[in-house]
Amino acid sequence: MNYLGVGVSPGNVPVYHGNNLKVIDRRLRVTELVLRCVICGLAILGAALIGTDTQVKVIFSIEKIAKFTDMKALLFLVIANGLAAAYSLLQVLRCILSMIRGSILFNKPLAWAIFSGDQLMTYLTLTAVAAAAQSAAFAKLGQPELQWMKICNMYGKFCNQVGEGIASSLIVSLSMIVLSGISAFSLFRLYGNSKGKGNAI
Amino acid sequence: MNYLGVGVSPGNVPVYHGNNLKVIDRRLRVTELVLRCVICGLAILGAALIGTDTQVKVIFSIEKIAKFTDMKALLFLVIANGLAAAYSLLQVLRCILSMIRGSILFNKPLAWAIFSGDQLMTYLTLTAVAAAAQSAAFAKLGQPELQWMKICNMYGKFCNQVGEGIASSLIVSLSMIVLSGISAFSLFRLYGNSKGKGNAI
Repeated sequence: MNYLGVGVSPGNVPVYHGNNLKVIDRRLRVTELVLRCVICGLAILGAALIGTDTQVKVIFSIEKIAKFTDMKALLFLVIANGLAAAYSLLQVLRCILSMIRGSILFNKPLAWAIFSGDQLMTYLTLTAVAAAAQSAAFAKLGQPELQWMKICNMYGKFCNQVGEGIASSLIVSLSMIVLSGISAFSLFRLYGNSKGKGNAI
Repeated sequence: MNYLGVGVSPGNVPVYHGNNLKVIDRRLRVTELVLRCVICGLAILGAALIGTDTQVKVIFSIEKIAKFTDMKALLFLVIANGLAAAYSLLQVLRCILSMIRGSILFNKPLAWAIFSGDQLMTYLTLTAVAAAAQSAAFAKLGQPELQWMKICNMYGKFCNQVGEGIASSLIVSLSMIVLSGISAFSLFRLYGNSKGKGNAI
Protein backbone atom coordinates (compact mmCIF):
# COMPACT_ATOMS: atom_id res chain seq x y z
CA MET A 1 0.00 0.00 0.00
CA ASN A 2 1.21 3.47 -0.70
CA TYR A 3 0.07 6.30 1.56
CA LEU A 4 0.32 10.02 0.96
CA GLY A 5 2.06 9.53 -2.36
CA VAL A 6 5.25 8.35 -0.74
CA GLY A 7 7.35 6.00 -2.82
CA VAL A 8 8.39 2.95 -0.80
CA SER A 9 9.56 -0.58 -1.37
CA PRO A 10 9.78 -3.04 1.54
CA GLY A 11 13.15 -3.27 3.22
CA ASN A 12 14.30 -0.35 1.18
CA VAL A 13 14.63 3.38 1.72
CA PRO A 14 11.40 5.29 2.39
CA VAL A 15 11.83 8.30 0.14
CA TYR A 16 9.77 11.45 -0.11
CA HIS A 17 9.65 13.08 -3.46
CA GLY A 18 10.44 16.75 -2.93
CA ASN A 19 7.14 18.01 -4.37
CA ASN A 20 5.04 15.44 -2.54
CA LEU A 21 6.68 16.47 0.71
CA LYS A 22 5.68 20.08 0.09
CA VAL A 23 2.10 19.18 -0.84
CA ILE A 24 1.69 16.90 2.19
CA ASP A 25 3.19 19.49 4.48
CA ARG A 26 0.93 22.22 3.18
CA ARG A 27 -2.17 20.05 3.66
CA LEU A 28 -1.08 18.95 7.11
CA ARG A 29 -0.41 22.52 8.18
CA VAL A 30 -3.80 23.73 6.95
CA THR A 31 -5.57 20.78 8.65
CA GLU A 32 -3.62 21.43 11.85
CA LEU A 33 -4.46 25.15 11.82
CA VAL A 34 -8.16 24.51 11.18
CA LEU A 35 -8.35 21.86 13.91
CA ARG A 36 -6.55 24.04 16.44
CA CYS A 37 -8.93 26.93 15.70
CA VAL A 38 -11.94 24.60 16.04
CA ILE A 39 -10.59 23.27 19.35
CA CYS A 40 -9.93 26.77 20.68
CA GLY A 41 -13.46 27.93 19.81
CA LEU A 42 -15.31 24.83 21.00
CA ALA A 43 -13.29 24.55 24.22
CA ILE A 44 -14.23 28.15 25.11
CA LEU A 45 -17.85 27.42 24.16
CA GLY A 46 -17.91 24.22 26.24
CA ALA A 47 -16.37 25.92 29.28
CA ALA A 48 -18.77 28.87 28.95
CA LEU A 49 -21.86 26.66 28.55
CA ILE A 50 -21.06 24.65 31.65
CA GLY A 51 -19.45 27.40 33.70
CA THR A 52 -22.40 29.81 33.37
CA ASP A 53 -25.05 27.13 33.85
CA THR A 54 -27.33 27.60 36.87
CA GLN A 55 -30.97 26.87 37.61
CA VAL A 56 -33.00 27.94 40.63
CA LYS A 57 -35.82 25.74 41.89
CA VAL A 58 -38.16 26.51 44.77
CA ILE A 59 -39.15 23.36 46.68
CA PHE A 60 -41.45 23.82 49.70
CA SER A 61 -40.47 27.51 49.86
CA ILE A 62 -36.77 26.53 50.00
CA GLU A 63 -34.71 27.91 47.17
CA LYS A 64 -32.34 25.37 45.63
CA ILE A 65 -29.69 26.34 43.12
CA ALA A 66 -28.10 23.84 40.73
CA LYS A 67 -24.65 24.90 39.58
CA PHE A 68 -21.76 23.18 37.87
CA THR A 69 -19.56 23.14 40.98
CA ASP A 70 -22.02 20.67 42.56
CA MET A 71 -20.32 18.03 40.44
CA LYS A 72 -16.54 17.81 40.58
CA ALA A 73 -16.49 16.21 37.13
CA LEU A 74 -18.03 19.34 35.57
CA LEU A 75 -15.51 21.55 37.35
CA PHE A 76 -12.74 19.31 35.99
CA LEU A 77 -14.23 19.57 32.49
CA VAL A 78 -14.36 23.39 32.66
CA ILE A 79 -10.70 23.49 33.76
CA ALA A 80 -9.68 20.99 31.03
CA ASN A 81 -11.52 23.06 28.41
CA GLY A 82 -9.84 26.24 29.65
CA LEU A 83 -6.41 24.63 29.41
CA ALA A 84 -7.20 23.22 25.95
CA ALA A 85 -8.33 26.65 24.73
CA ALA A 86 -5.21 28.41 26.05
CA TYR A 87 -2.92 25.71 24.64
CA SER A 88 -4.64 25.78 21.25
CA LEU A 89 -4.39 29.56 21.06
CA LEU A 90 -0.63 29.35 21.56
CA GLN A 91 -0.41 26.61 18.94
CA VAL A 92 -2.49 28.63 16.45
CA LEU A 93 -0.02 31.50 16.81
CA ARG A 94 2.88 29.07 16.21
CA CYS A 95 1.14 27.58 13.15
CA ILE A 96 0.50 31.04 11.64
CA LEU A 97 4.09 32.08 12.32
CA SER A 98 5.47 28.96 10.65
CA MET A 99 3.12 29.42 7.67
CA ILE A 100 4.21 33.04 7.23
CA ARG A 101 7.84 31.96 7.34
CA GLY A 102 7.04 29.08 4.99
CA SER A 103 9.11 26.74 7.11
CA ILE A 104 8.76 23.00 7.66
CA LEU A 105 9.19 21.45 11.09
CA PHE A 106 12.61 19.82 11.21
CA ASN A 107 13.47 20.89 14.73
CA LYS A 108 13.35 17.81 16.95
CA PRO A 109 13.05 19.48 20.38
CA LEU A 110 10.16 21.61 19.09
CA ALA A 111 8.52 18.56 17.47
CA TRP A 112 8.89 16.66 20.77
CA ALA A 113 7.36 19.58 22.69
CA ILE A 114 4.37 19.79 20.32
CA PHE A 115 3.92 16.00 20.37
CA SER A 116 4.05 15.86 24.19
CA GLY A 117 1.69 18.81 24.58
CA ASP A 118 -0.82 17.32 22.14
CA GLN A 119 -0.67 13.93 23.84
CA LEU A 120 -1.18 15.46 27.27
CA MET A 121 -4.10 17.60 26.10
CA THR A 122 -5.73 14.66 24.31
CA TYR A 123 -5.66 12.44 27.38
CA LEU A 124 -6.70 15.31 29.65
CA THR A 125 -9.73 16.33 27.58
CA LEU A 126 -10.74 12.73 26.93
CA THR A 127 -10.71 11.70 30.60
CA ALA A 128 -12.54 14.91 31.56
CA VAL A 129 -15.26 14.19 28.98
CA ALA A 130 -15.56 10.54 30.10
CA ALA A 131 -15.91 11.50 33.77
CA ALA A 132 -18.42 14.27 32.99
CA ALA A 133 -20.44 12.00 30.71
CA GLN A 134 -20.59 9.39 33.47
CA SER A 135 -21.82 12.01 35.96
CA ALA A 136 -24.35 13.26 33.44
CA ALA A 137 -25.61 9.71 32.90
CA PHE A 138 -26.23 9.37 36.65
CA ALA A 139 -28.01 12.73 36.70
CA LYS A 140 -30.14 11.85 33.69
CA LEU A 141 -30.95 8.20 34.44
CA GLY A 142 -30.27 7.84 38.14
CA GLN A 143 -28.98 4.59 39.63
CA PRO A 144 -32.00 2.97 41.34
CA GLU A 145 -29.93 0.05 42.71
CA LEU A 146 -27.98 2.56 44.81
CA GLN A 147 -30.88 4.92 45.58
CA TRP A 148 -29.29 7.68 43.53
CA MET A 149 -32.23 9.58 42.08
CA LYS A 150 -32.22 11.21 38.67
CA ILE A 151 -32.14 14.99 39.01
CA CYS A 152 -32.68 16.05 35.40
CA ASN A 153 -36.47 15.93 35.71
CA MET A 154 -36.09 18.68 38.34
CA TYR A 155 -33.37 20.69 36.63
CA GLY A 156 -34.20 20.17 32.97
CA LYS A 157 -32.74 23.39 31.59
CA PHE A 158 -29.56 22.97 33.65
CA CYS A 159 -29.07 19.41 32.38
CA ASN A 160 -29.64 20.35 28.74
CA GLN A 161 -27.03 23.07 28.88
CA VAL A 162 -24.54 20.69 30.53
CA GLY A 163 -25.28 18.21 27.74
CA GLU A 164 -24.44 20.82 25.11
CA GLY A 165 -21.21 21.63 26.95
CA ILE A 166 -20.23 17.96 27.06
CA ALA A 167 -21.02 17.54 23.33
CA SER A 168 -18.83 20.53 22.54
CA SER A 169 -16.03 19.10 24.70
CA LEU A 170 -16.37 15.73 23.00
CA ILE A 171 -15.66 17.34 19.61
CA VAL A 172 -12.66 19.05 21.23
CA SER A 173 -11.24 15.74 22.42
CA LEU A 174 -11.90 13.97 19.09
CA SER A 175 -10.12 16.82 17.28
CA MET A 176 -7.25 16.51 19.75
CA ILE A 177 -6.97 12.79 18.86
CA VAL A 178 -6.54 13.70 15.17
CA LEU A 179 -4.01 16.41 16.08
CA SER A 180 -2.06 13.90 18.19
CA GLY A 181 -1.75 11.75 15.10
CA ILE A 182 -0.52 14.69 13.03
CA SER A 183 2.08 15.74 15.59
CA ALA A 184 3.23 12.12 16.00
CA PHE A 185 3.69 11.98 12.22
CA SER A 186 5.58 15.30 12.22
CA LEU A 187 7.89 14.09 14.98
CA PHE A 188 8.60 10.48 14.14
CA ARG A 189 9.15 10.93 10.43
CA LEU A 190 12.26 12.86 11.51
CA TYR A 191 13.57 9.47 12.63
CA GLY A 192 13.07 7.94 9.20
CA ASN A 193 15.89 5.57 8.34
CA SER A 194 17.80 5.71 5.13
CA LYS A 195 19.51 2.38 5.74
CA GLY A 196 16.87 -0.30 5.96
CA LYS A 197 18.40 -3.35 7.59
CA GLY A 198 16.99 -6.74 8.52
CA ASN A 199 14.12 -8.60 6.91
CA ALA A 200 11.03 -6.70 5.99
CA ILE A 201 7.85 -8.15 7.47
CA MET B 1 19.18 17.82 20.50
CA ASN B 2 19.93 14.29 19.44
CA TYR B 3 17.61 11.47 20.49
CA LEU B 4 18.15 7.76 20.32
CA GLY B 5 21.57 8.15 18.81
CA VAL B 6 20.20 9.37 15.50
CA GLY B 7 22.48 11.67 13.52
CA VAL B 8 20.57 14.73 12.30
CA SER B 9 21.29 18.21 11.09
CA PRO B 10 18.47 20.74 10.59
CA GLY B 11 17.03 20.88 7.10
CA ASN B 12 19.10 17.89 6.17
CA VAL B 13 18.56 14.17 5.87
CA PRO B 14 17.65 12.32 9.06
CA VAL B 15 19.90 9.26 8.87
CA TYR B 16 19.97 6.13 11.01
CA HIS B 17 23.28 4.48 11.43
CA GLY B 18 22.80 0.81 10.64
CA ASN B 19 23.95 -0.44 14.08
CA ASN B 20 21.96 2.16 16.01
CA LEU B 21 18.86 1.14 14.13
CA LYS B 22 19.36 -2.44 15.21
CA VAL B 23 20.04 -1.52 18.83
CA ILE B 24 17.01 0.79 18.99
CA ASP B 25 14.81 -1.81 17.35
CA ARG B 26 15.91 -4.51 19.73
CA ARG B 27 15.21 -2.30 22.76
CA LEU B 28 11.87 -1.20 21.39
CA ARG B 29 10.82 -4.76 20.68
CA VAL B 30 11.77 -5.94 24.16
CA THR B 31 9.96 -2.96 25.75
CA GLU B 32 6.93 -3.61 23.57
CA LEU B 33 6.84 -7.30 24.45
CA VAL B 34 7.19 -6.63 28.19
CA LEU B 35 4.47 -3.95 28.11
CA ARG B 36 2.07 -6.13 26.15
CA CYS B 37 2.59 -9.01 28.60
CA VAL B 38 2.04 -6.64 31.55
CA ILE B 39 -1.13 -5.29 29.92
CA CYS B 40 -2.44 -8.78 29.20
CA GLY B 41 -1.87 -9.91 32.79
CA LEU B 42 -3.18 -6.78 34.49
CA ALA B 43 -6.23 -6.51 32.24
CA ILE B 44 -7.22 -10.07 33.13
CA LEU B 45 -6.55 -9.32 36.81
CA GLY B 46 -8.62 -6.09 36.66
CA ALA B 47 -11.53 -7.79 34.90
CA ALA B 48 -11.44 -10.72 37.35
CA LEU B 49 -11.25 -8.48 40.43
CA ILE B 50 -14.27 -6.44 39.36
CA GLY B 51 -16.22 -9.20 37.62
CA THR B 52 -16.13 -11.58 40.59
CA ASP B 53 -16.81 -8.88 43.17
CA THR B 54 -20.00 -9.27 45.21
CA GLN B 55 -21.03 -8.52 48.77
CA VAL B 56 -24.20 -9.55 50.58
CA LYS B 57 -25.65 -7.30 53.28
CA VAL B 58 -28.71 -8.02 55.39
CA ILE B 59 -30.65 -4.86 56.19
CA PHE B 60 -33.84 -5.27 58.28
CA SER B 61 -33.95 -8.96 57.30
CA ILE B 62 -33.81 -8.02 53.60
CA GLU B 63 -30.83 -9.44 51.76
CA LYS B 64 -29.10 -6.93 49.49
CA ILE B 65 -26.39 -7.94 47.05
CA ALA B 66 -23.89 -5.48 45.63
CA LYS B 67 -22.46 -6.59 42.30
CA PHE B 68 -20.49 -4.92 39.54
CA THR B 69 -23.43 -4.88 37.11
CA ASP B 70 -25.17 -2.36 39.40
CA MET B 71 -22.89 0.23 37.84
CA LYS B 72 -22.73 0.42 34.08
CA ALA B 73 -19.25 1.99 34.28
CA LEU B 74 -17.88 -1.13 35.98
CA LEU B 75 -19.45 -3.35 33.34
CA PHE B 76 -17.85 -1.16 30.66
CA LEU B 77 -14.49 -1.45 32.44
CA VAL B 78 -14.71 -5.25 32.59
CA ILE B 79 -15.51 -5.36 28.85
CA ALA B 80 -12.69 -2.92 28.04
CA ASN B 81 -10.24 -4.99 30.10
CA GLY B 82 -11.37 -8.17 28.36
CA LEU B 83 -10.83 -6.61 24.94
CA ALA B 84 -7.44 -5.21 26.00
CA ALA B 85 -6.35 -8.64 27.26
CA ALA B 86 -7.43 -10.43 24.06
CA TYR B 87 -5.81 -7.77 21.87
CA SER B 88 -2.57 -7.85 23.86
CA LEU B 89 -2.40 -11.64 23.67
CA LEU B 90 -2.59 -11.47 19.86
CA GLN B 91 0.07 -8.75 19.84
CA VAL B 92 2.34 -10.76 22.14
CA LEU B 93 2.18 -13.67 19.68
CA ARG B 94 3.03 -11.29 16.81
CA CYS B 95 5.95 -9.80 18.79
CA ILE B 96 7.37 -13.24 19.59
CA LEU B 97 6.98 -14.33 15.96
CA SER B 98 8.78 -11.25 14.67
CA MET B 99 11.56 -11.71 17.28
CA ILE B 100 12.05 -15.34 16.27
CA ARG B 101 12.25 -14.31 12.63
CA GLY B 102 14.57 -11.42 13.59
CA SER B 103 12.60 -9.12 11.33
CA ILE B 104 12.08 -5.37 11.59
CA LEU B 105 8.70 -3.80 10.88
CA PHE B 106 8.87 -2.22 7.42
CA ASN B 107 5.41 -3.24 6.28
CA LYS B 108 3.23 -0.14 6.20
CA PRO B 109 -0.22 -1.75 6.23
CA LEU B 110 0.80 -3.86 9.24
CA ALA B 111 2.32 -0.82 10.97
CA TRP B 112 -0.91 1.11 10.31
CA ALA B 113 -2.99 -1.76 11.71
CA ILE B 114 -0.87 -1.97 14.89
CA PHE B 115 -0.91 1.83 15.30
CA SER B 116 -4.70 2.02 14.86
CA GLY B 117 -5.31 -0.91 17.21
CA ASP B 118 -3.07 0.58 19.89
CA GLN B 119 -4.70 3.99 19.57
CA LEU B 120 -8.18 2.51 19.83
CA MET B 121 -7.28 0.38 22.85
CA THR B 122 -5.59 3.32 24.59
CA TYR B 123 -8.63 5.56 24.25
CA LEU B 124 -11.01 2.73 25.14
CA THR B 125 -9.19 1.72 28.33
CA LEU B 126 -8.58 5.33 29.35
CA THR B 127 -12.23 6.40 29.01
CA ALA B 128 -13.37 3.21 30.79
CA VAL B 129 -11.02 3.92 33.69
CA ALA B 130 -12.11 7.58 33.87
CA ALA B 131 -15.82 6.67 33.93
CA ALA B 132 -15.28 3.91 36.51
CA ALA B 133 -13.13 6.20 38.67
CA GLN B 134 -15.88 8.83 38.58
CA SER B 135 -18.49 6.26 39.64
CA ALA B 136 -16.19 4.99 42.38
CA ALA B 137 -15.72 8.56 43.63
CA PHE B 138 -19.50 8.95 43.95
CA ALA B 139 -19.74 5.60 45.75
CA LYS B 140 -16.89 6.46 48.11
CA LEU B 141 -17.67 10.13 48.81
CA GLY B 142 -21.32 10.51 47.83
CA GLN B 143 -22.64 13.77 46.40
CA PRO B 144 -24.56 15.44 49.26
CA GLU B 145 -25.74 18.35 47.06
CA LEU B 146 -27.72 15.84 44.98
CA GLN B 147 -28.73 13.53 47.83
CA TRP B 148 -26.59 10.73 46.44
CA MET B 149 -25.39 8.85 49.51
CA LYS B 150 -22.01 7.16 49.79
CA ILE B 151 -22.39 3.40 49.70
CA CYS B 152 -18.86 2.30 50.55
CA ASN B 153 -19.47 2.45 54.30
CA MET B 154 -22.09 -0.26 53.73
CA TYR B 155 -20.19 -2.32 51.17
CA GLY B 156 -16.59 -1.83 52.31
CA LYS B 157 -15.13 -5.09 50.99
CA PHE B 158 -16.92 -4.66 47.64
CA CYS B 159 -15.58 -1.12 47.22
CA ASN B 160 -12.01 -2.09 48.12
CA GLN B 161 -11.96 -4.83 45.52
CA VAL B 162 -13.38 -2.47 42.87
CA GLY B 163 -10.64 0.00 43.82
CA GLU B 164 -7.98 -2.65 43.23
CA GLY B 165 -9.55 -3.48 39.86
CA ILE B 166 -9.53 0.19 38.84
CA ALA B 167 -5.90 0.59 39.93
CA SER B 168 -4.96 -2.44 37.85
CA SER B 169 -6.86 -1.01 34.86
CA LEU B 170 -5.16 2.35 35.30
CA ILE B 171 -1.75 0.69 34.89
CA VAL B 172 -3.14 -1.05 31.78
CA SER B 173 -4.17 2.27 30.22
CA LEU B 174 -0.90 4.02 31.15
CA SER B 175 1.04 1.13 29.56
CA MET B 176 -1.20 1.45 26.48
CA ILE B 177 -0.24 5.15 26.24
CA VAL B 178 3.46 4.20 26.12
CA LEU B 179 2.73 1.47 23.56
CA SER B 180 0.82 3.97 21.40
CA GLY B 181 3.95 6.10 21.32
CA ILE B 182 6.08 3.12 20.29
CA SER B 183 3.69 2.07 17.51
CA ALA B 184 3.42 5.69 16.29
CA PHE B 185 7.23 5.76 16.12
CA SER B 186 7.35 2.42 14.28
CA LEU B 187 4.80 3.64 11.75
CA PHE B 188 5.73 7.23 11.06
CA ARG B 189 9.48 6.72 10.82
CA LEU B 190 8.63 4.77 7.65
CA TYR B 191 7.64 8.16 6.21
CA GLY B 192 11.04 9.65 6.97
CA ASN B 193 12.14 12.00 4.22
CA SER B 194 15.50 11.80 2.56
CA LYS B 195 15.07 15.10 0.77
CA GLY B 196 14.64 17.81 3.38
CA LYS B 197 13.17 20.88 1.70
CA GLY B 198 12.21 24.29 3.01
CA ASN B 199 13.61 26.16 5.98
CA ALA B 200 14.18 24.29 9.15
CA ILE B 201 12.51 25.85 12.18
